[in-house]
Amino acid sequence: MTDAEPGRLALADAGLLSPVRAGTPVEAEVCDAAWLQAMLDAEAALARAQAALGLVPASAAEVITVAARADRFDLRALAVDARESANPVVALVRALTRAVAAIDPHAARHVHLGSTSQDIFDTAAMLVVRRAATLLRADLARVAAALATLARRHRDTPVAGRTLALHAVPTTFGLKAAGWRRLVLDADRRVAAVSGGLQVSLGGAAGTLAGYVEAGADPERLAAAFAAETGLCVQVLPWHALRTPIADVGAAWAHAAGALGKFAVDVQSSTRTEVGEVVEPHVPGRGASSAMPQKRNPVLATLIRSAALQVPAQAAVLAQCMLAEDERSGGAWHAEWQPLRECLRLTGGAAHTAVELAEGLVVRPERMRANLALTGGAIVAERVAGVLAAYLGKPAAAALLTRAVEAADRLGRPLADHLASMPEVAEHLDPVELTRLCDPAGYTGAAADLVERSLRADPRD
Amino acid sequence: MTDAEPGRLALADAGLLSPVRAGTPVEAEVCDAAWLQAMLDAEAALARAQAALGLVPASAAEVITVAARADRFDLRALAVDARESANPVVALVRALTRAVAAIDPHAARHVHLGSTSQDIFDTAAMLVVRRAATLLRADLARVAAALATLARRHRDTPVAGRTLALHAVPTTFGLKAAGWRRLVLDADRRVAAVSGGLQVSLGGAAGTLAGYVEAGADPERLAAAFAAETGLCVQVLPWHALRTPIADVGAAWAHAAGALGKFAVDVQSSTRTEVGEVVEPHVPGRGASSAMPQKRNPVLATLIRSAALQVPAQAAVLAQCMLAEDERSGGAWHAEWQPLRECLRLTGGAAHTAVELAEGLVVRPERMRANLALTGGAIVAERVAGVLAAYLGKPAAAALLTRAVEAADRLGRPLADHLASMPEVAEHLDPVELTRLCDPAGYTGAAADLVERSLRADPRD
Amino acid sequence: MTDAEPGRLALADAGLLSPVRAGTPVEAEVCDAAWLQAMLDAEAALARAQAALGLVPASAAEVITVAARADRFDLRALAVDARESANPVVALVRALTRAVAAIDPHAARHVHLGSTSQDIFDTAAMLVVRRAATLLRADLARVAAALATLARRHRDTPVAGRTLALHAVPTTFGLKAAGWRRLVLDADRRVAAVSGGLQVSLGGAAGTLAGYVEAGADPERLAAAFAAETGLCVQVLPWHALRTPIADVGAAWAHAAGALGKFAVDVQSSTRTEVGEVVEPHVPGRGASSAMPQKRNPVLATLIRSAALQVPAQAAVLAQCMLAEDERSGGAWHAEWQPLRECLRLTGGAAHTAVELAEGLVVRPERMRANLALTGGAIVAERVAGVLAAYLGKPAAAALLTRAVEAADRLGRPLADHLASMPEVAEHLDPVELTRLCDPAGYTGAAADLVERSLRADPRD
Amino acid sequence: MTDAEPGRLALADAGLLSPVRAGTPVEAEVCDAAWLQAMLDAEAALARAQAALGLVPASAAEVITVAARADRFDLRALAVDARESANPVVALVRALTRAVAAIDPHAARHVHLGSTSQDIFDTAAMLVVRRAATLLRADLARVAAALATLARRHRDTPVAGRTLALHAVPTTFGLKAAGWRRLVLDADRRVAAVSGGLQVSLGGAAGTLAGYVEAGADPERLAAAFAAETGLCVQVLPWHALRTPIADVGAAWAHAAGALGKFAVDVQSSTRTEVGEVVEPHVPGRGASSAMPQKRNPVLATLIRSAALQVPAQAAVLAQCMLAEDERSGGAWHAEWQPLRECLRLTGGAAHTAVELAEGLVVRPERMRANLALTGGAIVAERVAGVLAAYLGKPAAAALLTRAVEAADRLGRPLADHLASMPEVAEHLDPVELTRLCDPAGYTGAAADLVERSLRADPRD
Repeated sequence: MTDAEPGRLALADAGLLSPVRAGTPVEAEVCDAAWLQAMLDAEAALARAQAALGLVPASAAEVITVAARADRFDLRALAVDARESANPVVALVRALTRAVAAIDPHAARHVHLGSTSQDIFDTAAMLVVRRAATLLRADLARVAAALATLARRHRDTPVAGRTLALHAVPTTFGLKAAGWRRLVLDADRRVAAVSGGLQVSLGGAAGTLAGYVEAGADPERLAAAFAAETGLCVQVLPWHALRTPIADVGAAWAHAAGALGKFAVDVQSSTRTEVGEVVEPHVPGRGASSAMPQKRNPVLATLIRSAALQVPAQAAVLAQCMLAEDERSGGAWHAEWQPLRECLRLTGGAAHTAVELAEGLVVRPERMRANLALTGGAIVAERVAGVLAAYLGKPAAAALLTRAVEAADRLGRPLADHLASMPEVAEHLDPVELTRLCDPAGYTGAAADLVERSLRADPRD
Repeated sequence: MTDAEPGRLALADAGLLSPVRAGTPVEAEVCDAAWLQAMLDAEAALARAQAALGLVPASAAEVITVAARADRFDLRALAVDARESANPVVALVRALTRAVAAIDPHAARHVHLGSTSQDIFDTAAMLVVRRAATLLRADLARVAAALATLARRHRDTPVAGRTLALHAVPTTFGLKAAGWRRLVLDADRRVAAVSGGLQVSLGGAAGTLAGYVEAGADPERLAAAFAAETGLCVQVLPWHALRTPIADVGAAWAHAAGALGKFAVDVQSSTRTEVGEVVEPHVPGRGASSAMPQKRNPVLATLIRSAALQVPAQAAVLAQCMLAEDERSGGAWHAEWQPLRECLRLTGGAAHTAVELAEGLVVRPERMRANLALTGGAIVAERVAGVLAAYLGKPAAAALLTRAVEAADRLGRPLADHLASMPEVAEHLDPVELTRLCDPAGYTGAAADLVERSLRADPRD
Repeated sequence: MTDAEPGRLALADAGLLSPVRAGTPVEAEVCDAAWLQAMLDAEAALARAQAALGLVPASAAEVITVAARADRFDLRALAVDARESANPVVALVRALTRAVAAIDPHAARHVHLGSTSQDIFDTAAMLVVRRAATLLRADLARVAAALATLARRHRDTPVAGRTLALHAVPTTFGLKAAGWRRLVLDADRRVAAVSGGLQVSLGGAAGTLAGYVEAGADPERLAAAFAAETGLCVQVLPWHALRTPIADVGAAWAHAAGALGKFAVDVQSSTRTEVGEVVEPHVPGRGASSAMPQKRNPVLATLIRSAALQVPAQAAVLAQCMLAEDERSGGAWHAEWQPLRECLRLTGGAAHTAVELAEGLVVRPERMRANLALTGGAIVAERVAGVLAAYLGKPAAAALLTRAVEAADRLGRPLADHLASMPEVAEHLDPVELTRLCDPAGYTGAAADLVERSLRADPRD
Repeated sequence: MTDAEPGRLALADAGLLSPVRAGTPVEAEVCDAAWLQAMLDAEAALARAQAALGLVPASAAEVITVAARADRFDLRALAVDARESANPVVALVRALTRAVAAIDPHAARHVHLGSTSQDIFDTAAMLVVRRAATLLRADLARVAAALATLARRHRDTPVAGRTLALHAVPTTFGLKAAGWRRLVLDADRRVAAVSGGLQVSLGGAAGTLAGYVEAGADPERLAAAFAAETGLCVQVLPWHALRTPIADVGAAWAHAAGALGKFAVDVQSSTRTEVGEVVEPHVPGRGASSAMPQKRNPVLATLIRSAALQVPAQAAVLAQCMLAEDERSGGAWHAEWQPLRECLRLTGGAAHTAVELAEGLVVRPERMRANLALTGGAIVAERVAGVLAAYLGKPAAAALLTRAVEAADRLGRPLADHLASMPEVAEHLDPVELTRLCDPAGYTGAAADLVERSLRADPRD
């Protein structure tokens, strides 16, 4: 097969517009073929569960399981046929029934027994989510571990703390890394909580399980067997129109995208040519421009941010789709599918990208020091004002510092020197003390302690 | 004061465009005055925490606490002055310092000691969220209890299950109510999890706590004391730019809005003139139209839905604002405030409205029965097809039923009668059996069991 | 090729989760292969434009044009390679250069001359949008024409007007159809305005056109030639970071999705089993359920609504991405691509689906009449109240009607009869007059005139 | 009045959480009182229009007009009463009727004649939008004019063009300003197009105008008279459930917010301490921090960006609400109100803020020059590569430059010097030529021409 092959692939989305996930592992787990396989897995698991309850011959369940392989089906035909019933399961059941019948005609009548499209589709979605979550969590763990290493290593590396785009007071690069790690761990906890509770969907035509009951099943035993076969949890109630499971995925994955996005925007702001405090890991050819030979663009941060800018909107669609009317919505259910997948693969791709970024980030303490020195000490004006407040009162001290910073800047003079030249300061603080006070490295507050505490608080790395 | 009073109120939003929350308790807890009081509470708690550590005289903390009453401040002036610093805290600190100085000039210098605007604002936000959550959870509990009562009472009341707008198979009204309740309990768990972990914000100018340390504080002890004074939890790390707490509120409240919205859209669909299965509680004058005297509009469901249509977008803004660059974002932080409040008051108003709806909902089993009969038995076609499948095979049975339903409908004849007239059916099923099979009330599957199980699963009501 | 074929297709999205567009014409115009072809078209057009200015040999432009065929390139490899530069153009330029060199080594150096990735990508996006818009507009025109026919035919067919889920006053089905048509025409105007102004993107590395100038081009002449070659408009300024063209597409397409979605939700509400006033066009097998043989689900409306629930969120991402920092954003640009495509193909698919729905919609005036009669005349209470107001005053008349409607409903009696039995009514209106007043068909106001006027206002159908 | 005043104001939103609009002119035009006045204006205009048609005595219309003053009504009571009917008009009509009756009992029956809540509310919304648009457009015009001045003045001021956070090639500050201006003009055109077509809403109970017709009106003449009285346009069809007018406002205002937001993020990125190329206008006390005396935060850009981050989500709610079922939605209509107002006042506030930013922006060409020199010439590597391509071929030239830039950076040496030391370069280019080629100021492409052309293209400033 080549891409030139006419027809089918020509209509497909192969990742060209979404480099953040193109070629990352999550893509394979959430692509159409994976979704198809998950629906087949759900059908097979249902048959085996019914066999376990004695409602279906074990041999039929076996045949169904054997037939339920995605590569036996025409994915594109199923996609197009889905238009006739507004979901892909109706056509899939027909195709699966034929495939089973081709092996064993007697087994065919046990396919999809008592079931309904949404049971299969939603259970499949949960299987897909679980697989994506496993990948996501593995990547988040690696990101967190790499950030823990950065936090430890740079616990005391001073860097300008910046607020509203301007230097504020010093902090340490380790504290920045510890903060990124904390967000990633927050996200992982949310993803883990959701992933741990993913449920089968078992409701029958309108959520009463009537079809299953009619076929002889005890609902509770059937649910337990279906859960056992799929590895998912049992549900309390059928959830065709109670969309907590889907909304939860949206919320958790959006959090993860946001956490990674925060890391990315900070890398971008620290990478700016004028700042230069970090550099993305160097890979030959990586970050090249089609025009500018000097460029080594921060592509990893760019990709991650591109995902983080999209996921909240997809999650909002999922939250909105909780307004699913009746026992099954005509539209709100169907609107979930693509946004759900986008949440999974954008976030999963971003996490995979972030592993490389976190593990390979080049940190440049010398540029941090140089930047800290840029304002001649103004970055610690808060500190000096605090010390002078004891002598002058807070408002007067603050006003004095505002004036001093402006004057020092105008005169191109270090703040400590200028302060030493002001009688109302000199009266209280000598030049040595002023120089000490104006050293940015001496005013990082509890940064190092915070790093240690945050690493201890979640010691997994 | 009258609304005619010139000037200030004229510029305010008093709820005219948001009836879902106008006059509900949450409104008072999240209005500007409440937010102002919460900021003052945060300042006073900080002073008391510093006093507990011996950094501030106890008397000064007391004076600050006394002065920190919202009714002493000019709310509108603070709002307008906030433009000068992009947040309301800078001007508030000035005003509070003056107010404290007016009582005790010596206490004034202990106001906002070592602190920063965002510590105060974010801690205040958490206090506001907590108060709103208390109201929300109380209302969700009442909604859940009322729905439990409906679920129990109508456990066996048959009603048409509807999917994609059409009758599917029968269910029971109790199962519908149990489903609404489950969503509400899901929401409550999510809100409770968030509310239980609301943290103080304590970071100082750039998240290193340097100002506090410089003022003599041990960071961990200060955080503990601040948490004790506010009743909030301690933080692991300062979170000026790590916005999990805010994103979490958005996600949980959006879930609650969605849960309530699902209830509302179902009430609307069941209220439609042609359906008439439920009626909103009757209150004289309620639901009146300005034009149509016969109208008793389902206004409670309308209000709830109006909120549910807005909250996901507000929550998406909060998720997006996780991309807060540096140690404090110039914009992403500020963009959170109004959407956060809208999440709180729209959802809180919706929950308060839902209490009345759930507690007073009028259920009309006779209309449910009449509607079940509308299709002459077609609503149980699945069942008959299942029974005939044993004789004819599944595809043939399904096709036969499709034909039979169409013919019966065309002839205006009950499905059971028509089936009895079909030789291929009559061969296997006699008219009595067919009549039994075609009784919708006999095909509610596990509905009653599901109701019981779901009530047992969360026995709080 | 089968779907079983290993590897590539397995990773692709072939429409399985998006039946609203699977197999519709827009899909082919916006798929990855189409996007790739559009990028190649942009490269070839640029070379020809430069040839027209004498900067590139005509023969080289010809060779580039010959080589620029998507089927010569490995789409998936390009997608994966895009991760290295965060966009697919860098790798594409390399591949195109190789392909050109294979034909004519001398031509290779004229590929992508003076250009930059974003010029190619954005120009390609505009070409894709134009093709999608042509399809969309053709479908919108057919929808509008079909709705015009419905409006004309049912200009006087009375149907219950419904507000807040309840019967309000009568209207006509023609006016409903005219309203849907109006929205579709509104959308078409917005799409047309955007489509008519789609621009080339020509900026060079940072929007100064320096690369092109350096290669000898007069910027204005180059832009004109590039526009001529692509059939797009010239730009006023390079728009790498001025995203009006993209935001405009989002806004216009979201409007179209909303217009179609309104049509869909009305079809759904009119299709409900209890209402039954319209039925989707019958196609054998269409709308079948996997479980319920009686079902003929309104799948077209379901598909359309599923799109309409997704597009506003995608458009919001595009609006948000206007916040593109600097001369090219690291993330905001990249976040546009997939949402832009989703806007195009969801809306395009919905419009294509709506053609079938509008052209085949089955209207059932007899059900409309039956439903109008359901409330025994209460649906015209407004009218009677208006007439009685002349005798009793407005408030008294309204209150009287509220009481009368309730009593008539309780007694199961037509409103006209009940009113005739009330002395305070009988004094002013005799039974014949009351019967006339209470006929819903007599109270459709200006509905017919509005239909005519709206058809005249836009006479294209 | 003080803020301490009990009760009402305590529940109001006075702008504390939305400094971007607190105290700006738009706030007064869209606040609750303004909305109330607009509803009263709509009622009065309707009465006058009916009087013009002879349906209502002129004297009654006069009395209604006199009574229709917002300061006569209890805004808060109306807001709370709105819960009973899900909109504020029902209670307002009662109150207005009483107020009219107090002046002239005979006039009272002519209040709201034949009308419905939504006619009044939607017409009022259009009046509010028009007033807000007038302010917005005046501010956009001032922003555009100020940016035109900057563009002209700095047409040739070189500054680093930045892409993906890194220096790309030089541009001019004038071109940046011209780009911001273009976006603002784009926005203004969109706002103007919407504002010019704002329509009255006139539909009666269910969009048939029946109530008005029953009261004797010719629909077309009534609409014309109503339009004349309000200064709005006539509608083609009643639009209670055809929400183009609202969605249009959302789209246009979101565009304006995005345009201003782009300006703001660029100001932020240029303001960063390390970049320092622009400074916000200095106002004593402005931009002060509660902690850091040296800070002069870019608060204007922060405020504008905070709005731009919120508006797209609000506009998305409006787009979503196009899915308004039936003749009037139970919820989708009501969900529009607050997001519509937020669009107006956030964008309006942002524009007002942007006037001050654009008119007072301090530009620092010397910092721009210093930053351009930071990379020792690497910023023009594209140019040198282009020149060398003629000798070495494109790929070899690009690879050479990549190596040269890395080496020059490693050696801390200007790129021109390093290139001169490379034999394969020296062979073709002498040091003088290399120095000329490496001067950033000489490689601004068509920047100046683009500035001129864009100013000519829209010569209004």
